[in-house]
Amino acid sequence: MKRLNGRHANQLRSIRITRNYTKYAEGSALIEFGDTKVICTVSVENGVPRFLKGQGQGWLTAEYGMLPRATGTRNQREAIRGKQGGRTLEIQRLIGRSLRAALDMSKLNDVTLYVDCDVIQADGGTRTASITGAMVALVDALKVMKKCGDLKANDLLKHMIASVSVGMYKGEPMLDLDYLEDSSAETDLNVVMTSTGSFIEIQGTAEITPFQLADLNAMLTLAQKGITEIFKLQNAILAN
Amino acid sequence: MKRLNGRHANQLRSIRITRNYTKYAEGSALIEFGDTKVICTVSVENGVPRFLKGQGQGWLTAEYGMLPRATGTRNQREAIRGKQGGRTLEIQRLIGRSLRAALDMSKLNDVTLYVDCDVIQADGGTRTASITGAMVALVDALKVMKKCGDLKANDLLKHMIASVSVGMYKGEPMLDLDYLEDSSAETDLNVVMTSTGSFIEIQGTAEITPFQLADLNAMLTLAQKGITEIFKLQNAILAN
Amino acid sequence: MKRLNGRHANQLRSIRITRNYTKYAEGSALIEFGDTKVICTVSVENGVPRFLKGQGQGWLTAEYGMLPRATGTRNQREAIRGKQGGRTLEIQRLIGRSLRAALDMSKLNDVTLYVDCDVIQADGGTRTASITGAMVALVDALKVMKKCGDLKANDLLKHMIASVSVGMYKGEPMLDLDYLEDSSAETDLNVVMTSTGSFIEIQGTAEITPFQLADLNAMLTLAQKGITEIFKLQNAILAN
Amino acid sequence: MKRLNGRHANQLRSIRITRNYTKYAEGSALIEFGDTKVICTVSVENGVPRFLKGQGQGWLTAEYGMLPRATGTRNQREAIRGKQGGRTLEIQRLIGRSLRAALDMSKLNDVTLYVDCDVIQADGGTRTASITGAMVALVDALKVMKKCGDLKANDLLKHMIASVSVGMYKGEPMLDLDYLEDSSAETDLNVVMTSTGSFIEIQGTAEITPFQLADLNAMLTLAQKGITEIFKLQNAILAN
Amino acid sequence: MKRLNGRHANQLRSIRITRNYTKYAEGSALIEFGDTKVICTVSVENGVPRFLKGQGQGWLTAEYGMLPRATGTRNQREAIRGKQGGRTLEIQRLIGRSLRAALDMSKLNDVTLYVDCDVIQADGGTRTASITGAMVALVDALKVMKKCGDLKANDLLKHMIASVSVGMYKGEPMLDLDYLEDSSAETDLNVVMTSTGSFIEIQGTAEITPFQLADLNAMLTLAQKGITEIFKLQNAILAN
Amino acid sequence: MKRLNGRHANQLRSIRITRNYTKYAEGSALIEFGDTKVICTVSVENGVPRFLKGQGQGWLTAEYGMLPRATGTRNQREAIRGKQGGRTLEIQRLIGRSLRAALDMSKLNDVTLYVDCDVIQADGGTRTASITGAMVALVDALKVMKKCGDLKANDLLKHMIASVSVGMYKGEPMLDLDYLEDSSAETDLNVVMTSTGSFIEIQGTAEITPFQLADLNAMLTLAQKGITEIFKLQNAILAN
Repeated sequence: MKRLNGRHANQLRSIRITRNYTKYAEGSALIEFGDTKVICTVSVENGVPRFLKGQGQGWLTAEYGMLPRATGTRNQREAIRGKQGGRTLEIQRLIGRSLRAALDMSKLNDVTLYVDCDVIQADGGTRTASITGAMVALVDALKVMKKCGDLKANDLLKHMIASVSVGMYKGEPMLDLDYLEDSSAETDLNVVMTSTGSFIEIQGTAEITPFQLADLNAMLTLAQKGITEIFKLQNAILAN
Repeated sequence: MKRLNGRHANQLRSIRITRNYTKYAEGSALIEFGDTKVICTVSVENGVPRFLKGQGQGWLTAEYGMLPRATGTRNQREAIRGKQGGRTLEIQRLIGRSLRAALDMSKLNDVTLYVDCDVIQADGGTRTASITGAMVALVDALKVMKKCGDLKANDLLKHMIASVSVGMYKGEPMLDLDYLEDSSAETDLNVVMTSTGSFIEIQGTAEITPFQLADLNAMLTLAQKGITEIFKLQNAILAN
Repeated sequence: MKRLNGRHANQLRSIRITRNYTKYAEGSALIEFGDTKVICTVSVENGVPRFLKGQGQGWLTAEYGMLPRATGTRNQREAIRGKQGGRTLEIQRLIGRSLRAALDMSKLNDVTLYVDCDVIQADGGTRTASITGAMVALVDALKVMKKCGDLKANDLLKHMIASVSVGMYKGEPMLDLDYLEDSSAETDLNVVMTSTGSFIEIQGTAEITPFQLADLNAMLTLAQKGITEIFKLQNAILAN
Repeated sequence: MKRLNGRHANQLRSIRITRNYTKYAEGSALIEFGDTKVICTVSVENGVPRFLKGQGQGWLTAEYGMLPRATGTRNQREAIRGKQGGRTLEIQRLIGRSLRAALDMSKLNDVTLYVDCDVIQADGGTRTASITGAMVALVDALKVMKKCGDLKANDLLKHMIASVSVGMYKGEPMLDLDYLEDSSAETDLNVVMTSTGSFIEIQGTAEITPFQLADLNAMLTLAQKGITEIFKLQNAILAN
Repeated sequence: MKRLNGRHANQLRSIRITRNYTKYAEGSALIEFGDTKVICTVSVENGVPRFLKGQGQGWLTAEYGMLPRATGTRNQREAIRGKQGGRTLEIQRLIGRSLRAALDMSKLNDVTLYVDCDVIQADGGTRTASITGAMVALVDALKVMKKCGDLKANDLLKHMIASVSVGMYKGEPMLDLDYLEDSSAETDLNVVMTSTGSFIEIQGTAEITPFQLADLNAMLTLAQKGITEIFKLQNAILAN
Repeated sequence: MKRLNGRHANQLRSIRITRNYTKYAEGSALIEFGDTKVICTVSVENGVPRFLKGQGQGWLTAEYGMLPRATGTRNQREAIRGKQGGRTLEIQRLIGRSLRAALDMSKLNDVTLYVDCDVIQADGGTRTASITGAMVALVDALKVMKKCGDLKANDLLKHMIASVSVGMYKGEPMLDLDYLEDSSAETDLNVVMTSTGSFIEIQGTAEITPFQLADLNAMLTLAQKGITEIFKLQNAILAN
């Protein structure tokens, strides 16, 4: 079955990552999954949150936002609503947990890394694109820290992290859903994996029809395939 | 391996559900998973949110809260902080999605069901207890609606829903983690299922160590076993 | 005149106090005045507010909340409204002032007691029940502090405190109004007293008809009678 | 015993009421109780709150504020804190309840009266001054409404309202406490009465020492004396 | 052309400044530009904002507010809206910048001056009246600081500051617009100047018709004339 | 005098405008003034604010934001602070006023145009770049509306609008300050003009040294020169 967008069921969208997209941040990237575009920056600041003070550890925290007209109809600006919505909080908590899993925090002495993922244009998969793009910006920020003498050792980075969404669409597993597909998929599954092939996070939601264990395993297989390709891309980009 | 709390790896805590726990709500239940205690109420109100107006549909929305001293150390009251935290929003969105999956909304004409889950005492698994307890309160609320002539047909309820948490603890899958276990578990997985044996939601997070596909399947098997027992309990309670 | 609820004008509702209702708080109680049910906890924390720093004193502060469906029709959750309402603030200020009057703060060295009163079900008199129940939880919290060596002397507690509401209903003074009575009472008077027979707080409001000095004195006499009975109950409960 | 400020125990401060203090409001007054100065305005607007729609009734609501430097040390502006404090809400609720007791709301057809009391300078007794001053502004606003044909009948105003504070100071009852006296008074009692000699509201708080029934009655006698003088003043001012 | 209010195009309204209008603030003034009335206070507090800590400097910050019925129709109280509006923030930033330009902050060692401008009645030109009145209160506050030994040198005050609005009204430049004129002026220009004849701030807005360079220069000439008169008035008031 | 950045005093930075930068908005542009980069979108929605209802008019409103790491050091996200800052509000009010001056609102029947200007990277002049870029996006949005039949006439657009900043830097007037220059400029002046050569808005602030009338006229001359060049650029871009 060909998809509306012409892709095969197991085919990723065209992915582009532009490193050093902004001039101030220690690490930054523009990541594009088809028409989904996210600016990811990593900022390095001294100090840690109160619950970590005096433990010789570091911290990483993430924030997520969307420009009001990143979507088909304009959304109210969260700064005007006076608070971040539930979806935003859910996503930025996921990004933070995922990237913290890439680092050995005990080697990040009293430093906080702020990850900002701001969606310029949304066409499905913004949270998985954010994690994947922020990982690249994070590697660049670590390099800057090392150059500045902030990091003594190489082993702060435990492994790379990448993420993709999969779904059940008309009864078939599909890789990397765009907005149209996502809107009518029966099930939506976000997967975060390490470059060593383990899982960091899986979040599956039956939007319309409950799913079976077999569906889950089929979707996870597809996700593994997609994430393997994404790791290749991350490596290629970072090798330049 | 015996657990600290004396349970077997595949053993649920003692679960108690007290129906009609409060006198005003159309449906209500106190659910206890060991020392975790949650008051669940379902309130029926006329009207639907703006995005559903004029479609002849109904809606169900959930809110979650915790008394400040439901936990070992006191948490700031969210009404004083001026907003619900990210964890709260994440949980109440999960409860809402899960319970909506139990109903055929198109038969709930211009009515909104408000589900409130308030944790009186927290010892791990508050979100899964909330879903499980609210399902019972929801059935009772539907009965009240039917008595009052609000519902024409029997088939509003598609199936029952229940939820449990599982985790990897010292390398082994464990059912229904309490707070102590949850704090040191490598992986935490929340599972929501239908009484017809399908999945509504799975959310797995590697807190410490990434997990493997085999771990995931072992945890899901355990979750299915636990949820099957919980469905029996729900049925028994509702049969009284 | 018999009341709608079958009580005599000078008769309290059935009052029950369950000590140690929750497992974490230093002191806790469930108090029931008929169908009004409030969970009261007292949490002990090191540190005092800024205005007391360095004075060797302690502090006690109270917060009050209501579950959304504690009442006949559901109220919006204050954590979602983004602030506590005027009624809530008024009540929690009253609870705090009343309980502070029970203690010699100068002997509570750099410790803050947080009193949380959360209404599970409301049928009139929630503020007076809160004060009465929190007093019991406070005594238990002081015992825990003493066991832990936090308190050197016995005389921190100056006297017990209890509270009840009275009102003018169809021209007659009535003790301990329930919600139905309260809604149509001409005057509502909340009274807080010490176990030594003095007044800590009186708040009287003519809801419908202005009241006379004679009415006030009749209501106060009734309140004194009711509070004397409540002190007996508190003592009996604490003697177990 | 002479008071610090040279007054007798039963002596009011010098009270001045300036009618029509601002040019836009339907009714307005500057009230001065010694150094306490409050601008009171009454604004007339069409429409009523939702809970009164379609009942042919009116409503009156009050708001209270204090300029940041109305006091000895500057207070943070509530518009910057982002919310009104508990004391502010408590006071404005009291002002609203008190003034509503002066009117027959059923004759105020679909009109809302907004009472604003803004303290320019605070030296004790701001809430009682606010009620007393706003009553005068309210009478003037009713006259404007009548001129404009908004009110068919004379009997909207049931009676005048006035308020004063009394207290126990060094064991003696004192009338109309200023800030210095209030800060060290054992008990503080705010009294609102009708011009027909009945009580609308009494709020007594033992700040330092619990009070006896005899104290309460002595304070109320003093309050009645003071309020009687205030009614004379209100009448004289309104007669001009 | 005579103006609606009878003034000449280059004529200020009657301006009155009452020094020491409130008893607590280190400096205070009531300023009246015709029917526009603003209470200005200057409060002196130890400490500076974080970004100035440890630099031996001082700071001045301004806040602006309006009583709800300072205007023809009542505005919602900002403390109830939960935030200051854009206009308010814009004005208080202007007041702060303008008055900071009057002082040599490096001689104001670790002290913050809080300027509060609260509009009691608004009839156009509230921001320019605020700046002009607050300047007088500031001089008085500096005198108090000097008396108290807080200031070693005379030269903290670099020059006086005053402000006026001008506009194009029916094609002609007009000085000191009142509300009616301002509402229908083509262009509105606020000017802040030093007593040494230089500009601190100009803000010109074409409300209806774009303006030409010649208009701008005509308006500035008028503003200079008006501000010169205002400086004379400030000096006369401060000489008493 | 050569500037630090190598430009002449009267030289603009390199300006680039990319039309249709995002795929959903009716009009959109990325505008770059050197390293300052702003995404401008114009969204067309039916309906007008309450104060315009039933008048057959339209409205245009603008919002401004900055990505947290658009600057050298990271700023807190306004959605997390819970409100927009004073600077943000001031800028978005300026953008809105300026663009409204370009349109004949009476021909925009019951439609609201939302202008969003989001700064991706900030290097001085973000507000003037926002106005200039949003003008281009606005023209494209009007074209879309016309294609869709929303606009009957050509004359909705009265003229183009553009904006630039100028300043006094080391005693000399300079065009289009970058961040480094702006930080140490004595005076900063933002100018908004029509393509017909008139002024819409001028805002001049003496940051360090008060300025003279001659300085102002020199800066305005420079601004006119710069804006004339910008209009040429806008026209060239729109001609493609």
